[in-house]
Amino acid sequence: MKGVILSINPSARIVDITHDTPARDIEFAAFNLLSCYRDFPAGTIHVAVVDPGVGSNRRALAIKCRRQVFVGPDNGIFSWICEREREYRAFNVTDEKFFRQPVSATFHGRDVFAPIAAVLSAGTTIDELGPPLQDFVRLAPLTPSTLDDQTIEGRIIHIDCFGNYITNLTPNDLREDMFDCGAKITINNYDIVAFHHYFADANDGEPFCYFGSAGFLEIAATNSSAQELLKAHRGQAIQFRRPPRT
Amino acid sequence: MKGVILSINPSARIVDITHDTPARDIEFAAFNLLSCYRDFPAGTIHVAVVDPGVGSNRRALAIKCRRQVFVGPDNGIFSWICEREREYRAFNVTDEKFFRQPVSATFHGRDVFAPIAAVLSAGTTIDELGPPLQDFVRLAPLTPSTLDDQTIEGRIIHIDCFGNYITNLTPNDLREDMFDCGAKITINNYDIVAFHHYFADANDGEPFCYFGSAGFLEIAATNSSAQELLKAHRGQAIQFRRPPRT
Amino acid sequence: MKGVILSINPSARIVDITHDTPARDIEFAAFNLLSCYRDFPAGTIHVAVVDPGVGSNRRALAIKCRRQVFVGPDNGIFSWICEREREYRAFNVTDEKFFRQPVSATFHGRDVFAPIAAVLSAGTTIDELGPPLQDFVRLAPLTPSTLDDQTIEGRIIHIDCFGNYITNLTPNDLREDMFDCGAKITINNYDIVAFHHYFADANDGEPFCYFGSAGFLEIAATNSSAQELLKAHRGQAIQFRRPPRT
Repeated sequence: MKGVILSINPSARIVDITHDTPARDIEFAAFNLLSCYRDFPAGTIHVAVVDPGVGSNRRALAIKCRRQVFVGPDNGIFSWICEREREYRAFNVTDEKFFRQPVSATFHGRDVFAPIAAVLSAGTTIDELGPPLQDFVRLAPLTPSTLDDQTIEGRIIHIDCFGNYITNLTPNDLREDMFDCGAKITINNYDIVAFHHYFADANDGEPFCYFGSAGFLEIAATNSSAQELLKAHRGQAIQFRRPPRT
Repeated sequence: MKGVILSINPSARIVDITHDTPARDIEFAAFNLLSCYRDFPAGTIHVAVVDPGVGSNRRALAIKCRRQVFVGPDNGIFSWICEREREYRAFNVTDEKFFRQPVSATFHGRDVFAPIAAVLSAGTTIDELGPPLQDFVRLAPLTPSTLDDQTIEGRIIHIDCFGNYITNLTPNDLREDMFDCGAKITINNYDIVAFHHYFADANDGEPFCYFGSAGFLEIAATNSSAQELLKAHRGQAIQFRRPPRT
Repeated sequence: MKGVILSINPSARIVDITHDTPARDIEFAAFNLLSCYRDFPAGTIHVAVVDPGVGSNRRALAIKCRRQVFVGPDNGIFSWICEREREYRAFNVTDEKFFRQPVSATFHGRDVFAPIAAVLSAGTTIDELGPPLQDFVRLAPLTPSTLDDQTIEGRIIHIDCFGNYITNLTPNDLREDMFDCGAKITINNYDIVAFHHYFADANDGEPFCYFGSAGFLEIAATNSSAQELLKAHRGQAIQFRRPPRT
């Protein structure tokens, strides 16, 4: 992919974000990209390839959003970014003159997505690539659901290498001081009632929550693993219950 | 290695292809390089270091080929590229003024190959490095053998992380439509009679063949692993038998 | 981190040294950096983040040394470089205007160290970042101890992926010809009496020593693993005994 990009645009600057996405794990990649795209400068072109559907008639997607462009397969990998940003323009890349020929059946990263990114970096505009696309694939929504006056249902959207749970709850859904008044997170029938700013403030082995570096509420256990203690899986629902009104 | 290169040529642009070659596995690296060098632009200098012979009197090699240069140990790592391209000029790098001093016994990547690549990127020409070399080390040839009118013997040259077999057979050896007329690949007494363009076209767990992204015939099994089903090893011979003439 | 750097200084050139440091292993990272910093050109800014103390009141450190700058947490990660180089200026980065806001509790690599490196690369001078700092955290010293006329006590400072031991003994402490006259290294009651230049010169499975590519005495066993044979751990003391005077 890097060779293809540099052959098309020798002055392209290429930055690796990660090569450690597990095979076929679209949500893993979607979360990692969601965590970092805002820190890249305007004009950045992100190419993401996690592609269980390669070789099928899965479409190629290019999305302009927040003065950046996202290029990859239409499998939901960028849908959380679109959901969060709201303003975006998505295109189905259909003009095969932008592809490396012949297009192989198994390596669209090299033959489709890398050359698209390269021509964009060299000045082609996104609307030259193909027609607009509205019905691209979406992952389960990033936004939690309001169950009732007191309860918000979220879910675990990522589990990191330390066994911390990253949820889809944000400061829009809850404030940390609510935990001083009886708020709790329920996960697998376990109630988490503590909010801490630092791992060092929590008791060893007792699950607590905090706002993590990606802006989401996370659940961890100091010198232990939330994953080992709570045995929840990615995608699992969790409930946030506000303190009772007094 | 990157520090050495940038100390010699501060404007060098460095691209990582892979750091995941298993220790001492020359054929693994040779295959990966064979798969991608043609996608890099003219003027690229490839440095490859898989070096079980470091510290022995193994020679340092620089090869000019296809308007690119390949720098590394004389252990066969570039021999498939030379075999395929046919036109190349190889040199034994002997002039120690190009090396980082003192040359350590265990890290020629840093002390020998990186500085050679750096001086080449800064304008030194390849024939300044040392005398031409004809008898560099060759791996087993990439080209399959014709056994008889009907049979070509190839071999497995790589097994990827999904357990797919990459063979040394190419469209020069066979056409996909031959499988419609009774052609087959034999591997460990198992006959593979199906050719598909896409994984989704094959039955789960039934080995089939296809042309892979590196240009070679590959053998895979959808939602399974050719390696687990067929238990062949890298280097093992396979037979392609054309359909009988009618 | 790369996005943050490029957002502040779009012309910064970023080079990855490694992403394979085990979690929380400060000595591992300190050794790897010690092994390579001298090969980078003047003006290089190294950012190292191995940060078990993130979220505590661990300080941010910037050190000018050998015409390079080192940025990271005050956890000892740069102390061996300072001990070796002797001349350096260290600063406690306190001016929060250089940080990405808000500073998260768990990702100072992105919020503190990357932006510091970026502003330095863009022209901010190190003494603008905060006050000088003398009492930064030091790891156990790199320099071995002289026990008596004949004996130097060193230790294992690193164990590489092949099971080789890297010690803190250098050519300042011993000469290879001493092994011809009866010198020995004692480790776990095992005496190592052989010094070789090349792995191929040693008998299979017999531990020997040599000067490694980082400039330290190493202990290895050809086609085997010193670690498996000698069962020593990192940090463990070893004794070098000179030959008796005659």
